[in-house]
Amino acid sequence: KTLRFGMLPADGIGHEVLPPAQRVLEELSSRKTLPKLEFIPLNAGFEYFRRAGVALPDETIEVMKNDVDGAIFGSVSSPSHKVTGYSSPIVALRKHLDLYANIRPVSTVDGKVDMVTVRENTECLYIKKEELDTLGDGSKVARATRQITQNASERIGKLAFEIALKRDKVRQSQSQCSSPHTEPSVWSIHKSNVLSVTDGLFRESIKAAHKSDERFSKVKLVEQLVDSFVYRMFREPQLFDVCVAPNLYGDIISDGAAALVGSLGVVPSINANDTFAMAEPVHGSAPDIAGKNIANPIASIRSAALMIEHMGYSEAAAGIYRAVDEVLKGDKVTPDLGGKATTTDVEEAVLRAL
Amino acid sequence: KTLRFGMLPADGIGHEVLPPAQRVLEELSSRKTLPKLEFIPLNAGFEYFRRAGVALPDETIEVMKNDVDGAIFGSVSSPSHKVTGYSSPIVALRKHLDLYANIRPVSTVDGKVDMVTVRENTECLYIKKEELDTLGDGSKVARATRQITQNASERIGKLAFEIALKRDKVRQSQSQCSSPHTEPSVWSIHKSNVLSVTDGLFRESIKAAHKSDERFSKVKLVEQLVDSFVYRMFREPQLFDVCVAPNLYGDIISDGAAALVGSLGVVPSINANDTFAMAEPVHGSAPDIAGKNIANPIASIRSAALMIEHMGYSEAAAGIYRAVDEVLKGDKVTPDLGGKATTTDVEEAVLRAL
Ligand SMILES: CC(C)[C@H](C(=O)O)[C@@H](O)C(=O)O
Ligand SMILES: CC(C)[C@H](C(=O)O)[C@@H](O)C(=O)O
Repeated sequence: KTLRFGMLPADGIGHEVLPPAQRVLEELSSRKTLPKLEFIPLNAGFEYFRRAGVALPDETIEVMKNDVDGAIFGSVSSPSHKVTGYSSPIVALRKHLDLYANIRPVSTVDGKVDMVTVRENTECLYIKKEELDTLGDGSKVARATRQITQNASERIGKLAFEIALKRDKVRQSQSQCSSPHTEPSVWSIHKSNVLSVTDGLFRESIKAAHKSDERFSKVKLVEQLVDSFVYRMFREPQLFDVCVAPNLYGDIISDGAAALVGSLGVVPSINANDTFAMAEPVHGSAPDIAGKNIANPIASIRSAALMIEHMGYSEAAAGIYRAVDEVLKGDKVTPDLGGKATTTDVEEAVLRAL
Repeated sequence: KTLRFGMLPADGIGHEVLPPAQRVLEELSSRKTLPKLEFIPLNAGFEYFRRAGVALPDETIEVMKNDVDGAIFGSVSSPSHKVTGYSSPIVALRKHLDLYANIRPVSTVDGKVDMVTVRENTECLYIKKEELDTLGDGSKVARATRQITQNASERIGKLAFEIALKRDKVRQSQSQCSSPHTEPSVWSIHKSNVLSVTDGLFRESIKAAHKSDERFSKVKLVEQLVDSFVYRMFREPQLFDVCVAPNLYGDIISDGAAALVGSLGVVPSINANDTFAMAEPVHGSAPDIAGKNIANPIASIRSAALMIEHMGYSEAAAGIYRAVDEVLKGDKVTPDLGGKATTTDVEEAVLRAL
């Protein structure tokens, strides 16, 4: 069987960080750790929108739905002014493919940080139901709907508990484990003291998910208001294992978590459902450094590893994680980490360390 | 003239941190740096709700509206389960008194951090318009409305630019200034790449506020998406001067900013409009340490200083800031800052340093 991956570099450094991820996967394929691979370039993004008038062409959606086993997305630029007709392709892709979970792990080699954000990826304010009105005095009022459903919240809750169990199992199996966690925990992040109905429903759904499976009783459930969470994440990062959150809080806290580990340039994610994963480095399109061959490819390489792990190729993924960790211990790192290496240097270093 | 202040300890450590703030103000009054003072105890909070069935009695609202020149609020506990009829009194007070701005400065003595969050305090998801429905399959769906108006956004924007000018003036007047800022700037925090209508309106309104007054052209306006902002705040805190944000983002980033300066226990705020201010330490009710006389009173003392500064007593306020800074340089600090001092010890140290 041949595995087919959609490649969507989108904007800015997306074009530079996807090839390294592809070459790492190809190397593993040539060593038979992965099957034969095929990469299908697909259009999406703001640059494409400016050429073609559409940010996410139907053809891309069709191929993603029917013709590929996984995908890697680069990063999108946000227009600096309102642009009529433009809408973020990454948000649309998540919705079209029902990639209901955004999984963003961060950890440090010294074992101080080992957390993963499990972000609900389909609703909350991201349903983009917005309207604009004019008041009696001629001034404007805008309204957006924030939607939280029991189904989506329980679904993401169950996944969070599964992930907590899996992480615990991995930790148990390691003879030398640097993780700060001795027992698995899920932190439920919300703001139910203000949003008692929507975040109240999220909170109750996470509790229900906890009770939905006997196996989950091994996992401790803790609650944390989102504002205090951001405070505590920076004061006591070692506390947090799996953090489950509605879409927007998840967006914010996963960027914050990236600050804990030195650079957005090393933080991976996948947008996933139970059968499909789209890799996506957490960083943006970084127009200021695009085209200079100094973007850090580690986030996209690690995202590709998360993707194949989600597809069941755990060993191949583990090989990538180890190689990346080794490279990060050396001085062949890009400027975001204080080094002088180029994107290509890091790619080669990872290939050598594989 | 006698100044009258409403005192609303509310819950938990609110009862312990308000008396020190009161005594600091009384000391300044006895030295004639402030006029005669009167303090009026007022009911509010979750503890009061459990006794009286209401979290914010009408009487408290009446006195706040008609009988006092300012107020100090402690902190509220959030019920750990949904409690019918309970709704946060602090959110309600902000609305009843139209305290449209929540001003939260943080700084470090080493001059690495010197920022202030200017949070819109009346709308966004805090309008608490929420509803619960049942879907065809019997599962629940909850919806909340997020409201952003041009008027409220421009109003908070103008205040942010005024504050930026004022901070710049203070910096210019200091012979030795440890601030990292050489020119005033306002950072407009939003998520207009997803919420193009609501956050689009916020963004345009801040731009309009910038252009509304010739004097504001001295202030640089910079935009930052809220997720990247949280990342950058921890990587390059020295960049940020005045940060203006819609209500919920402001809530989250001001708690994050507190982590930059060591402890929530030192971060003050006022809820203000152009004629009235209610002081409020940023920390919560901290049930785990309530009643132990170890809560840090500095946040509430500094909040009281912000309040009288807002009333025009800048010199008295400056005296409090100086005294607090001096105490913070010593070792008479509470456990949240790594010390062994009690609430009372810190209160006495501040009084001595005045
Ligand atoms: C680009 C933007 C729409 C996106 C989001 O908000 O989800 C990004 O910040 C992310 O986290 O993947
Ligand atoms: C207690 C809560 C309602 C409040 C808020 O969200 O505004 C608090 O977090 C704050 O920041 O003052």
